Formats: sequence, structure tokens, C-alpha cells
Amino acid sequence: MSGNFGKKINLSIFGESHGKAIGIVINGIEPGIKIDLEKIKKDMARRAPGRNTLSTQRKEGDNFEILSGFFEGYTTATPLSVIIKNNDIKSKDYSKIKDLVRPSHGDFSGFVKYNGFNDYRGGGHFSGRITAPLVFAGALAKQILESKGIYVGAHIQRVGKVEDDSFDRVNLNKEVLDSILVKELPLLNNEKIDEIKREILNARQNGDSVGGAIECSLIGINPGIGNPFFDSLESVIAHLAFSVPAVKGIEFGLGFDFAKENASKVNDEYHIKNGKIRTYTNNNGGIVGGITNGMPVVFRVAIKPTPSISKEQRTVNIKTMEEGILKIEGRHDPCIVQRVVVVIEAIAALAVLELL
Amino acid sequence: MSGNFGKKINLSIFGESHGKAIGIVINGIEPGIKIDLEKIKKDMARRAPGRNTLSTQRKEGDNFEILSGFFEGYTTATPLSVIIKNNDIKSKDYSKIKDLVRPSHGDFSGFVKYNGFNDYRGGGHFSGRITAPLVFAGALAKQILESKGIYVGAHIQRVGKVEDDSFDRVNLNKEVLDSILVKELPLLNNEKIDEIKREILNARQNGDSVGGAIECSLIGINPGIGNPFFDSLESVIAHLAFSVPAVKGIEFGLGFDFAKENASKVNDEYHIKNGKIRTYTNNNGGIVGGITNGMPVVFRVAIKPTPSISKEQRTVNIKTMEEGILKIEGRHDPCIVQRVVVVIEAIAALAVLELL
Amino acid sequence: MSGNFGKKINLSIFGESHGKAIGIVINGIEPGIKIDLEKIKKDMARRAPGRNTLSTQRKEGDNFEILSGFFEGYTTATPLSVIIKNNDIKSKDYSKIKDLVRPSHGDFSGFVKYNGFNDYRGGGHFSGRITAPLVFAGALAKQILESKGIYVGAHIQRVGKVEDDSFDRVNLNKEVLDSILVKELPLLNNEKIDEIKREILNARQNGDSVGGAIECSLIGINPGIGNPFFDSLESVIAHLAFSVPAVKGIEFGLGFDFAKENASKVNDEYHIKNGKIRTYTNNNGGIVGGITNGMPVVFRVAIKPTPSISKEQRTVNIKTMEEGILKIEGRHDPCIVQRVVVVIEAIAALAVLELL
Amino acid sequence: MSGNFGKKINLSIFGESHGKAIGIVINGIEPGIKIDLEKIKKDMARRAPGRNTLSTQRKEGDNFEILSGFFEGYTTATPLSVIIKNNDIKSKDYSKIKDLVRPSHGDFSGFVKYNGFNDYRGGGHFSGRITAPLVFAGALAKQILESKGIYVGAHIQRVGKVEDDSFDRVNLNKEVLDSILVKELPLLNNEKIDEIKREILNARQNGDSVGGAIECSLIGINPGIGNPFFDSLESVIAHLAFSVPAVKGIEFGLGFDFAKENASKVNDEYHIKNGKIRTYTNNNGGIVGGITNGMPVVFRVAIKPTPSISKEQRTVNIKTMEEGILKIEGRHDPCIVQRVVVVIEAIAALAVLELL
Repeated sequence: MSGNFGKKINLSIFGESHGKAIGIVINGIEPGIKIDLEKIKKDMARRAPGRNTLSTQRKEGDNFEILSGFFEGYTTATPLSVIIKNNDIKSKDYSKIKDLVRPSHGDFSGFVKYNGFNDYRGGGHFSGRITAPLVFAGALAKQILESKGIYVGAHIQRVGKVEDDSFDRVNLNKEVLDSILVKELPLLNNEKIDEIKREILNARQNGDSVGGAIECSLIGINPGIGNPFFDSLESVIAHLAFSVPAVKGIEFGLGFDFAKENASKVNDEYHIKNGKIRTYTNNNGGIVGGITNGMPVVFRVAIKPTPSISKEQRTVNIKTMEEGILKIEGRHDPCIVQRVVVVIEAIAALAVLELL
Repeated sequence: MSGNFGKKINLSIFGESHGKAIGIVINGIEPGIKIDLEKIKKDMARRAPGRNTLSTQRKEGDNFEILSGFFEGYTTATPLSVIIKNNDIKSKDYSKIKDLVRPSHGDFSGFVKYNGFNDYRGGGHFSGRITAPLVFAGALAKQILESKGIYVGAHIQRVGKVEDDSFDRVNLNKEVLDSILVKELPLLNNEKIDEIKREILNARQNGDSVGGAIECSLIGINPGIGNPFFDSLESVIAHLAFSVPAVKGIEFGLGFDFAKENASKVNDEYHIKNGKIRTYTNNNGGIVGGITNGMPVVFRVAIKPTPSISKEQRTVNIKTMEEGILKIEGRHDPCIVQRVVVVIEAIAALAVLELL
Repeated sequence: MSGNFGKKINLSIFGESHGKAIGIVINGIEPGIKIDLEKIKKDMARRAPGRNTLSTQRKEGDNFEILSGFFEGYTTATPLSVIIKNNDIKSKDYSKIKDLVRPSHGDFSGFVKYNGFNDYRGGGHFSGRITAPLVFAGALAKQILESKGIYVGAHIQRVGKVEDDSFDRVNLNKEVLDSILVKELPLLNNEKIDEIKREILNARQNGDSVGGAIECSLIGINPGIGNPFFDSLESVIAHLAFSVPAVKGIEFGLGFDFAKENASKVNDEYHIKNGKIRTYTNNNGGIVGGITNGMPVVFRVAIKPTPSISKEQRTVNIKTMEEGILKIEGRHDPCIVQRVVVVIEAIAALAVLELL
Repeated sequence: MSGNFGKKINLSIFGESHGKAIGIVINGIEPGIKIDLEKIKKDMARRAPGRNTLSTQRKEGDNFEILSGFFEGYTTATPLSVIIKNNDIKSKDYSKIKDLVRPSHGDFSGFVKYNGFNDYRGGGHFSGRITAPLVFAGALAKQILESKGIYVGAHIQRVGKVEDDSFDRVNLNKEVLDSILVKELPLLNNEKIDEIKREILNARQNGDSVGGAIECSLIGINPGIGNPFFDSLESVIAHLAFSVPAVKGIEFGLGFDFAKENASKVNDEYHIKNGKIRTYTNNNGGIVGGITNGMPVVFRVAIKPTPSISKEQRTVNIKTMEEGILKIEGRHDPCIVQRVVVVIEAIAALAVLELL
């Protein structure tokens, strides 16, 4: 069903890019969680556009307003609702090209699904902007998880041709995760920052965009979280990940590299470390049989290059059914990977909360 | 929640590898669907073990017995339940090593989750055997989809080092899908059959196993199926895919290769063909904004090498918390990729039925 | 789970009586439904307080603001969200007695559930005010049902000692339902209006309140809606009805009178009328085996007297655990039955939409 | 959806009266619960037919077979499935009258819903027999609740003209509940047993049947269980209760009598007893604001007289659309109230487990 997710933590997201407001209703939060609103604002800012030359110039403070479920600084456990008003809207940009469906956007598939009745302005309900309420929910989820000793952190693993392979799936700690937060680009390896900036600015200069990949990990998670059928932790993370616009792939641990290997090389053998059962390697990304094994949960998502580019593209007019040429004007992101990092953290945190 | 999936099509799977029976209850099937039981048996046989030297020697006819929801040859729309009895059980093989958790299996994570109360014999509820009821449900789903002109087909894309890259995401038709069904190994490219057999037999000879990748496609599907949040078609397929033991990654269309590219190169531009809106390329794998666009739905999953191998492995005794060496005897698959192909078709068909 | 309901039509309600706003997110609405906002406002007014001496003096316009899912006059099928701001708040009235739990209110059970963290002001999330978003959703649902020829109408069947037994479960038509809408008190039998007013004003004069019962019917509904297990139409209506504060009983058709009878007297025998299968009587209230039989769906709910009264009551201070005497001041309804009528219509319409 | 219920405890029921087997899959049970199978058999026997002259002569041992989720005497927390084979089937009795829809049965509404494809024999999926798996699930739920100090018990409150009003909603204890279990007819007041037997045997003699009412209570339940919206404890109990064939009404505590009263008379005032907050009266039936308040949860359901009677009835042939006269032969219950008692206990226990 559109808009709704979860049995234990229930999320009901809503809004269109150029409507009055976007928001989310969150059910299943326990009472008495002290919420640090400043921390939530920081996460909102990590996703927000207009911060530097690497993203779109649309400026949205993404100021949220909590309407319910939060009282005197604490969660109440009644439905927590939040809205984010839409401010810097330039709808004219879109109406011009409204019937020329934009390649690799939801314009055409959405037109068919909604029988032409959906709000097309700015991508409407398909807009990446709708992930802002997800980031709010995720920031809240992260605070709840932190109170249980679980930490979530994501970073850029690739942008276009540039890869950062310095990630260690076994030896992760909170310091590593925290160190990324203060960087302009959330990368493990500082030496890659300039190369990746160049990829993005190149794309911008060419009126183009570039894709990438994000690695996310959860540490401090106990063994025993998840199910074999059908709500494996992988299933729930993947379910939410593929709700994030532009995500086109997900892999856990070794992921697609498993396909090339023998078990004798990639099985995660057990040993005892500090009185706990651990694995020498973490090729399974902390999940075996759909259930956590106590190792860091590690996954990677593929982000396609944002399809809004200013280059000319061949397309079709959905009303007249004639072929035509589209040139998208307006403000666009040359790369959204750096903005999606915090969204991936959000869905990881929400998935774990759903299964905890 | 363990065992249950879906709002429109609801699946309730159950059973343990060495219990009395495994099975599934399927809700949400429309009444009056004529079921071809022979076709279902064929799909069951595609998954069943013991057919040749490429899989385990455990012999299970996987004979199913429909208990309800099926009357005089047609579905009734009341809950359809089916059981498959377990016959060829050699539980002794497992009890010997019961406390030595098998690397990369669900033994340890399951022990923690179920507090040691779960049936450990033969992997219990974690066994790949539990996918047999899924294949039944999928075979039924495929018949329903076929009555609507939708066809599902999967094939091996890789085993170990050997890749078959002859797949064309744009020009797919029923003949291509059907041609795979009659082959001993479900491959597009006949020239790869011997190479892949060699990979599997090598693994067998070494007491090892080998991983692979499966490509699956759905053709004849109308645009408009799926949702932006949270039940994108990608989300629902991925959710079910990660319930299939050994699946560790999924990607749609270009998938992880999107990360390396520019939008100008990978956007799927539109044109008109035979009066219908189509895309020149199909990098999005038939899904944009979480919704089908009328192109073939195409995805790929990574299958890890089945972790049961006869080589010695380091592990831990979960009762004594001592490190030890494990040597798994009994019957094992050197490669499960060819058996999983029909399971992936099943989950693809069920996912589409859920969202149709 | 708190706040969320439904698989086909999903409702996510939120808000507290004295918070910033209350509202609802509605999923599963089809696209292209033209919404008559004036009609929705009329339903909101039927529930709103402060209209005359029969209800509380709190004045709330209950002006709703649609944030999403509604575009250029039509539903879009993306999540439809609406908020209603809280205006006429006198929170001081409540803080005085905050720790003295009010008898028959949710104060004590809520305090335990929410561990004392919930917003207690004005009943918080327990307030009857939270039914305003339900009325919005119901008014929308009624418009969708009307487009399919289904009409919903409710009326007062009893207030205190005064009963109106003029209801005919077999011969119902739209004119009967419409005629009730224009009355000050929604009663079938005009001759009872003065008696019922007297019951209410008596209660008011005594600083007391009085209960009642509401009868609701749906006409024009086809046979075949509902399920035997577990989502009988009765189950779904009852589920929603018992979410409405003050509802303490529900019965379909003959209801509890069935307990006294023989089948030969109360079975609904079939005949043919105008080419359709009908029953002579409608003791089953239009639902047999959990499924509609084409007769009007008819049910009755019991409404307890609103527990806020100005008479002294014995209670307990939840902080000090001392017994004490409570005298509730502020504005109260001597009778809420007339205001709940439209809420019952709302839940009936939503239940049918869920199963249609 | 047909057949499936619950988010925390998920039930998937299946089967037809004259099919191979009926059964249920139960998810969400915690691991390590020791199940007393003898106790479950006793509950099954309480519902089973053919025990004496008060019920139908169909003899079904209702022997259940647990297929999964139960290992070495304990629950495993993997899906627990159970089947009950159908033995004493006389399908010929039904085929004679197959097209003459039986008044007040699901024959007609089911025919429309299932488009004529459902198994009509013996009522098919509408049969009261399908409650046997519910009794199994309930018996299991009761054992889990008992381990937490919660006890469930139900008794006959009325059969036809005879009422037993000896129930005390405030002072309930385990001894009272247990004392009912050993009686031939589950009644509080022994003096009513003969009168009620007479009502039943009268109905039998007349080829008729008689309705009744059942009271159910849960004791030992903590305050704080349930939700205001939408899953009030009343909502969940009612949802399940209206899945039980023949239930046509439900009321909590004072129920419909609330409609006649003033708050000053029926509000449940608080006091302290043994250091705990209690109410003097229990008119709310232990639930306020949808949430338990620590008093016994008390509700009553109305059971319509079973519609299968041997008297002649007017009906319609659904194939020819002609009016006709139906005379139902075969074995019938003159009263099902005494057999439904344990079913009501089952749904009460399952509802509480869902919300605990």
C-alpha cells in the first residue's frame, strides 16, 4: 500500500513536493524517550538541499513542526506526527514540461497509476523531498537505538568512477562512525574527497549527474534480531531502502561477490573473543538466516544518477502521444549521493526498530 | 513477524526440515482459477533435490497435498492450504554436531533468537527445504498471472567464475523464457552449460560449494503496478527475495552499475512503439518511482555458496563456549543456484500478485 | 497498534485535545474522486461542539486543512493527509485536577500504559475531539460510497429512558436517511424530539450526563462484501466502533434479542423481489456468514454517558496514592449521543470501504 | 482479508467442513513455552459435537496433529501449525439441497462472494467446525496467559427464555472460573441447569433451535493493555468475536444498559484496595479508553439460534432463481451456546495475547 509501513513501528508518510506540507505519522514509539531536537535538526540539515555547490540550489530549511505524540520533551507513545512546510517553491518551472514525461523519473509510471490525477509539480509524491520526513523518523529511531547501545552510520563508497574501499566490516567502532559526521563529504578516506568532488562538479558542468554507492553499518546490535521468513532483517532493510528514490540495488556483506566464491573461502568461521562468539570475517554482513549474529550489520546500496539533467533527452508527450525533445530547466542536483547518506541511516535505524 | 507476509496476497509458511510436514496457507486468491496441478508438480520438481549429480542426494518427491481452498479443480477464494510431508530424513547426521554451530548457517543466530528451543535437525525452519511451499505458492501465482498475460522466467547468470551475459533486458518474449525450462541447467547461453557444470563438479570434488547469480524477468506487465512509498515493486520483490536462504544481494536493471554512470548515459529515454510508450533502453529494469513502466521487470539476485561443506571449519560449541573444529558429514549441495531459480520465479510472481 | 487501521484503506490518526493540531493520514483512496468539501464541512459541523445548549460550550470550528493527496479538486491516490488545528483551549481547567484520575475516563489506564508521559490536558489522545479526523475520513468515504450507490445514515435510537422504536430494518431508502440530516436532533420519530431534549437538559441541570444508543444503516450495498474469518463485515465495523470513545456495545440486526428466540421465528427466509433475492425479515442486519446478503446493513451501538460531570466523585490521586474527592469544572457535554451519530456513520462507511 | 488476523500474534485459519482437514498457523508465540497437550485436548472436547443429547450427533474426535513449531514439548517460536482431519463426513445430506440456500446461513452471501466456486458441503468454510482450530489456538494462548497469572473463563448467561444473572463483575476469582469447567453445562448458577436443558430439549423436540448469550471474563490482567485508537482491547476482542459464526452482538461491562443511565450512577469510582487502585463497581468491564484498568475484563456475546432446523422454510433456488420450500435433514444442534463457550474463551485469550 502506498504510504504505510510496519507492524511494530508504523510509518505513514505523506506529501507532495509543491503541496502545503509533507510529513509523517509514527506509531509504536515507546513512551518516555527524551528527544534531542538539535540532533534531529542536524540530520535534517545533512539531507537538506542548497548547502553548497554540490547540490541543488533550492533552499529548504526543512524546519519540522511536531504536532502530537511529544510532550514536555519526551515521547508519549501516542502517534507522533510531524510536518515540514514547503516554502521555496517554483512551480512554474515544471508546468511548462508537464506532459513531456521525464526519462527515468516516475512521471510516466505515476501518470498511469494515478490516472493523471496526481500532483505533478516538482515530482509530486515521487520527489526526493519526501525523504525529509523519513530522515526525521530515522533521527528519532537513532536516538532510541543509541539508548540501547546501537549506533548507525553511513558513508559514500563510490561516486561515478571513484571508489573508497577503506571500509573494514569487522573492526568498526563508534569513533569511526562519528568521524564521518563532521566531514563536508561523508567519506572514510579523506584522500578521496577531492576526487569525488571533481566527479560531482564535472557532472554539474556538463549539465549531467552522476551516481554512486553508500555503505551503511550498525554496530552494538545483539544477536537474535530478525526472522527467517518473511521478515529477515535483510528483507526489512531492503524493503525500506527501495522506497528511497534512486536506490536500485542492495547487498549485504560480500553481496554480489559471493556469487564468484567458494564457501570454504567466504564462510564466516566462529571464534571466542572477550567471552563472546564472534566471526573472524564478516562476509555475511552480520546477518545469517535473516537474523543478526552480533557482528556489525553492513550493507551497501546503489544510487542511480538523479535523472533530472539539463541535456536534451528524447521523450514522449503523454497527452498527445507524440515523440518530442525535453530540456529540463530549473535547479538540479549533479549528485544526490551525499544527501542520501542520512536517508540510508534513517531506514537502517527504522528497520532495526521494527524488528527489535 | 516470522512466517507471515502480505496484505492482498497473504502467505503463512511453516515447517521444519525434519518435522512432520512443511506447508503454506495462501489467502487472497480470487475464486474460480482453474489450477493445472501438473504444472505445479513440474515447478516442484525443478526445486527438488536428488535429481542429478549437481545437487544433494536427499530424495524428496515433494509431493504436495492441498487441504483446503481448492474444490473440483478450481480455487475457491477461501484460504488455500497445502502440506508437503517430510520423508527421507536422516536426523542422526545432525545430532552429532548439534552444538557446534555451522559457519554461515542460521545455527548460532537462531539459537539466540529462539533461546535454544528451535528444532535444529537439518537446519530446522532455516532449511532451504522450507522454500518448497514457496515454490507451490509461486507456481499457483504464475498460473494466475499467465491468465492475465504476464509471464515470469529466471535463469542462471553466473556460477562461480563463469558468467552468462547474453541477457537482453529490452527484447524479451515468452519463447525465450520457455526455452530455458526444458534445459538441464536453466541458462540462456547453451555454450556456457559445460563450463558451469565444471564449476559445480569441481566444488563437489573439493568438498566445497560455489555461489552464483540468478536473473529473473517478468514480461507482459502493464505500467502502473507498485507504489512510491513504501511498497515499491522493488521493495516487495526484495522483501521476499531476502527470505530465500542464501540470497545476499538484489539489483534492478543496471543495479550497481548505475553507481559508475552519468544520467545522460543511463536514463531510459521514451519513444512510441506499436502505439505504446516504451523506453529505448531498460536500465531501470521496468520500474521507475517504484512503479512499473511497461518494460520487462528485470532483476538479479546474488546467491552465496551453500555453507554446508565437508571441509574442516573453525567454530564454537554453543553449550560449552569452547572453540572447536567442525567437519560436516551427510549429503550436501555443491551448488544450489540451479535449484533456487524456480524459487526466485516464485517470489517474483507472488510480489506482483501482491501489488496488482 | 495505537493509531493505525486497515489493509486496503489505511488510517493513521493522531493528535491530542490540547496539542497543536489533530489529524489523519488516509491511504488506499482511489484517484480521481471529486471531493465536495462543503459536504465534508457539514459533517464536521454535525460533530462539532458549541452549537446549542445540548452540548459543551467549547467552540471549535473544526476547520480542516488538507495537506496532501488532493489536487485541483480530486483525490490523487497518494496519501491524503488533513489537519485540524486546536484553537479554543483552556488547559488551566485540567491542570488543577491532573493527578486525581477521573472515573470512567482513560486517565488511569492511560497513565499506566504511557508511564505518565502522555499529554493529560483535555483528555489528550483519549479526547472525543480525536474523532473529528475520523469524521473527515468518513465524510470522504461516504462520497466514494455514494458514487457506487451506497448510502449511510444513522440516528438516535435512545437517550436515557426515551426510546425511538420506529426503525424498519427492511424498508429503508435514501429519503428516510436524508430526512434525518436536516433535523436539530437526528431522530426518526419527530414526536420523541421533545422528550429526548428533556432527558438531556435534565442531565445538564443536575450536573450530570446521560447515555444513549445509535442505530446506523447502509443501503444499496451489494451481496458478497465481507469474509467469514477474520474480517467479517461485523468484525471490521465493530473494530472501528470500539475505537470511538464511549461506545460499549454493538449488535447487528436483532442482536441480543436473538438470544431469547428460536430459529424458526428469527431465521430470515428468502424470496424473490423485483428479480432479486431478498429476505422477508432482516434479523441478521444484512450480514450472514460475515458477508452482506444485499439487505440493508443495520447495527446499533451503546453510548455510555460521558463521564465528565460536575457532581462530586470519589477517586484516587495517582501520584500520592491517596483517596480523594474530585469535582470536575469546565465545560462538559450533558449528552454526546447526538454528536456521535456522524462518527458512527463515518466508521460504518470506512469499514465498508475497507472490505469493498 | 479472509483467514488472517493479527500483528503480534498472527493467525492463519483454513479448512472446509467436508474437506481433507482444517487447521491453523500461529505466529508470534514466544519460544520455550511448555505446552500441556492434555489441557488442549480438554478444551477441544468442550467444543466437540456428539457428546450428549444437547448437541449434534456428528462425532468428531477433533484429534489435532501439530506439524511444526513445537519441539520436544516446547514451543519453538517458529510458525506453529496444526491440522485436524475431517472424519465423520456425510456429504450426501447436503448435495440434495445444495441450490436451495438455507435461511440465515452463509450459503447465499457466500455464493455471491465466491462466485459459486466455494465448497458448499456442510457449510464449507462457514461451518462452525472451523472454530476447532481457534479453540486449539485459544487453549495454547490460555496456557501462555496462565504463566503470567491471567485466567480466562466463560459461562452461559442465557438460553432462550432462561437467564442466569448471578455474575458478579467485581469479585471474580480463579475458583469461580474453575468451578464452571467441571459442569455438564457451563453455568454459574446450578439451579438454572435443568431449566436450560429443558429449553434445549424443547427446541430439539420441535425440530427447532434456540439462541443464548455467553459471558466471558479475564482476571489477573494488569492495567495498561490496549490502545485508544484503533486497537482498543474492546476492538480486538470484538473483531475476533464476530468471526465466530452465530455471534451477533457484544457488550462490555454494563453494555447496552449504559444507554439508559446517568454518569453519576454508572461511573466507576476509584479507591485503594490492598495498595492497588481499584474501582468500586465494574460497569466499564475492566476497559477504559480502550485500555485495561486492572479490574476483570468482562464482556457478553449474543449467539443466534443455529439456523439449521428441520422445520420447513421458504427459500430460493440460487441456480433457477425460483422460490421453493426447504426442509433440512441430517444432524443438527438444537443449541450451540454450550459448545461456543470455549470458543469465546479462545478469542478472548488470543485478543489479550495480541495486545500484551
